[in-house]
Amino acid sequence: MRINDSTPKADGFYMPAEFEEHRCTYVLWPEREDNWRENAEPGQAVFKQVIRTIAKYEPVMVGTNKSQYLNLLEMNMPNVQILEISNNDAWIRDCGATFVVNGTGNMRAVDWKFNAWGGLVNGLYFPWDQDDFVAAKMAAIEGVDYYHLTDFVLEGGSIHSDGQGTILTTEECLLDPGRNPDMTKEQIEEMLKEYLGAEKVLWLPKGIYMDEDTNGHVDNICQFVEPGKVVLAWEDNEQDPQYERSKAAYDYLSSQTDAKGRSLEIVKIHVPNPVLITQEEADHVDVVEGSFPRREGDRLPASYVNYYNCNGAIILPIFNDPHDQEAIDTLQSLFPDKVIEPIYAREIILGGGNIHCITQQVPRL
Amino acid sequence: MRINDSTPKADGFYMPAEFEEHRCTYVLWPEREDNWRENAEPGQAVFKQVIRTIAKYEPVMVGTNKSQYLNLLEMNMPNVQILEISNNDAWIRDCGATFVVNGTGNMRAVDWKFNAWGGLVNGLYFPWDQDDFVAAKMAAIEGVDYYHLTDFVLEGGSIHSDGQGTILTTEECLLDPGRNPDMTKEQIEEMLKEYLGAEKVLWLPKGIYMDEDTNGHVDNICQFVEPGKVVLAWEDNEQDPQYERSKAAYDYLSSQTDAKGRSLEIVKIHVPNPVLITQEEADHVDVVEGSFPRREGDRLPASYVNYYNCNGAIILPIFNDPHDQEAIDTLQSLFPDKVIEPIYAREIILGGGNIHCITQQVPRL
Repeated sequence: MRINDSTPKADGFYMPAEFEEHRCTYVLWPEREDNWRENAEPGQAVFKQVIRTIAKYEPVMVGTNKSQYLNLLEMNMPNVQILEISNNDAWIRDCGATFVVNGTGNMRAVDWKFNAWGGLVNGLYFPWDQDDFVAAKMAAIEGVDYYHLTDFVLEGGSIHSDGQGTILTTEECLLDPGRNPDMTKEQIEEMLKEYLGAEKVLWLPKGIYMDEDTNGHVDNICQFVEPGKVVLAWEDNEQDPQYERSKAAYDYLSSQTDAKGRSLEIVKIHVPNPVLITQEEADHVDVVEGSFPRREGDRLPASYVNYYNCNGAIILPIFNDPHDQEAIDTLQSLFPDKVIEPIYAREIILGGGNIHCITQQVPRL
Repeated sequence: MRINDSTPKADGFYMPAEFEEHRCTYVLWPEREDNWRENAEPGQAVFKQVIRTIAKYEPVMVGTNKSQYLNLLEMNMPNVQILEISNNDAWIRDCGATFVVNGTGNMRAVDWKFNAWGGLVNGLYFPWDQDDFVAAKMAAIEGVDYYHLTDFVLEGGSIHSDGQGTILTTEECLLDPGRNPDMTKEQIEEMLKEYLGAEKVLWLPKGIYMDEDTNGHVDNICQFVEPGKVVLAWEDNEQDPQYERSKAAYDYLSSQTDAKGRSLEIVKIHVPNPVLITQEEADHVDVVEGSFPRREGDRLPASYVNYYNCNGAIILPIFNDPHDQEAIDTLQSLFPDKVIEPIYAREIILGGGNIHCITQQVPRL
């Protein structure tokens, strides 16, 4: 049921950290032909690899439009459930529910308003009506009530929680005029605190270079490893436009403390070398009026920080790049008890995001 | 995930009785204009009443086609979850999953083949492809594996279980040529035992008079009250064609013992006076090629035995008939600890079934 007259904070709920235990992971199935090249088949192959890999560690709930239901059902993947969840595209991190818990074994969901990353100002497609129902459907499947925001736009990829009162976000995204243009930064911060049950919001200035689709989501540049410790996408080359973005984030984080008053330990993970769209890749995306153009030579916002932290494993996007091994090694040292599961994810980044963007966790109570 | 190479019985699973505790109830939302008059609005009003009544006692999961999703969501009914489950019509008792449990806290589902009550022989509509996916979707939402039958047709309304090894069914339905014409009665009985984890099948000869839609489903004529005790739809008037059906069932049941060797106590519940379709009711069903005709004066298979036995209540169809009070009193005496919830259900019987036919329980583990 919808809860319209209260907030998670008022009711004692908060967003746990992604690194805490999950009940399961939700994924949506891609099929949009003006976003995924070659009728989405190469993209589906990588999504399937992500799904099967996560399913080794926790249950995976895959939502799909009716059109692809039987295709998915017949794959009969172990520890994977196939659900009908209509959608406009497959970015469940952004259109899906944010789950919040209290200390006494209860869970609820937050159903933010979704407008395809900027609505009619600078969104990526129209309509986004089915995407905007995804959160309520996830809450229904999980059997929990949900907070329904009718006038506050947010995507799950623009926030991270440490589970102890601290939220990470970026000014580039949350202050972009395509979302909540009539609200001040202070008002937006207040909404995050109320609906995520948080005490402090850390505002990185910007996301990854060329992450124009999402206006610089934090989940591509920075993620909590544990309370008081983050990984940050890094670039050594001062001539690369990523450098000043990473440097600004580093300087900002170094100057801040979290909700518990701790200084943050910052672990750098170098980004891959620039990933550029090839002519072949650009040519095979269907052109539809209003859809986002793909041009040969455009740089993609590739980053290892867009990994997904599930029970027992880190599902890590790699790019067949010299920096892959360094990212694997760094994450293995940060998570000695987890398996690092690298997946060559170029096909997902071609669609506009990466592994973190196509997953959404449900906490285990 | 599908289980193709085993059976519930082989794996130690069985179907619990409906009168045992439920986790929740599933319902599908009606909208088919060639079955529900006046664009299904009167039918939807009664379904809503059934949903809200059950939701006083246990969670209700309402599945709907995409077209009616927002309509349902905006009702914001307490203890009710709205799910996307595409369907061809709203009879989840028949197209939905049968849940089976073992003694150690595990649940699975059985996904029978569904062919709209007779397929191309004497089924009620074509296609039934979305109905046939409902069971797998219910299993996915509940997060359980399911047994997938590709060549054995059965509807949930054609069986009742006492949870102790006994199954009730009717010859009229299960031996009808529209379902499994190449199987003998013995082979069909073996399938019931294997997939319901049962030891004994009791075969009533026929169902309710004029229950031609379902070919005489048992859930309209007989239901377990507790192990060793059933209610039976009865007719005193020997001139009424229902009499010989009820009498034959009574005589059969009186001659039988259940799986545990008990004789059955039979409690009669008199059917209402004949319920006939009015001209007004017949006129407002859209006519579509191949759909089931509604004619003024046709008798409807009205019976109180098509009640739903949920946690703490009996959801009872009534007909504004002199026999209503007797049915209420009989059920109250059979279930002294439950609330009898009578609902005027003429609109559902006009659609072809009744309250039991539009519900499906999930056991509580």
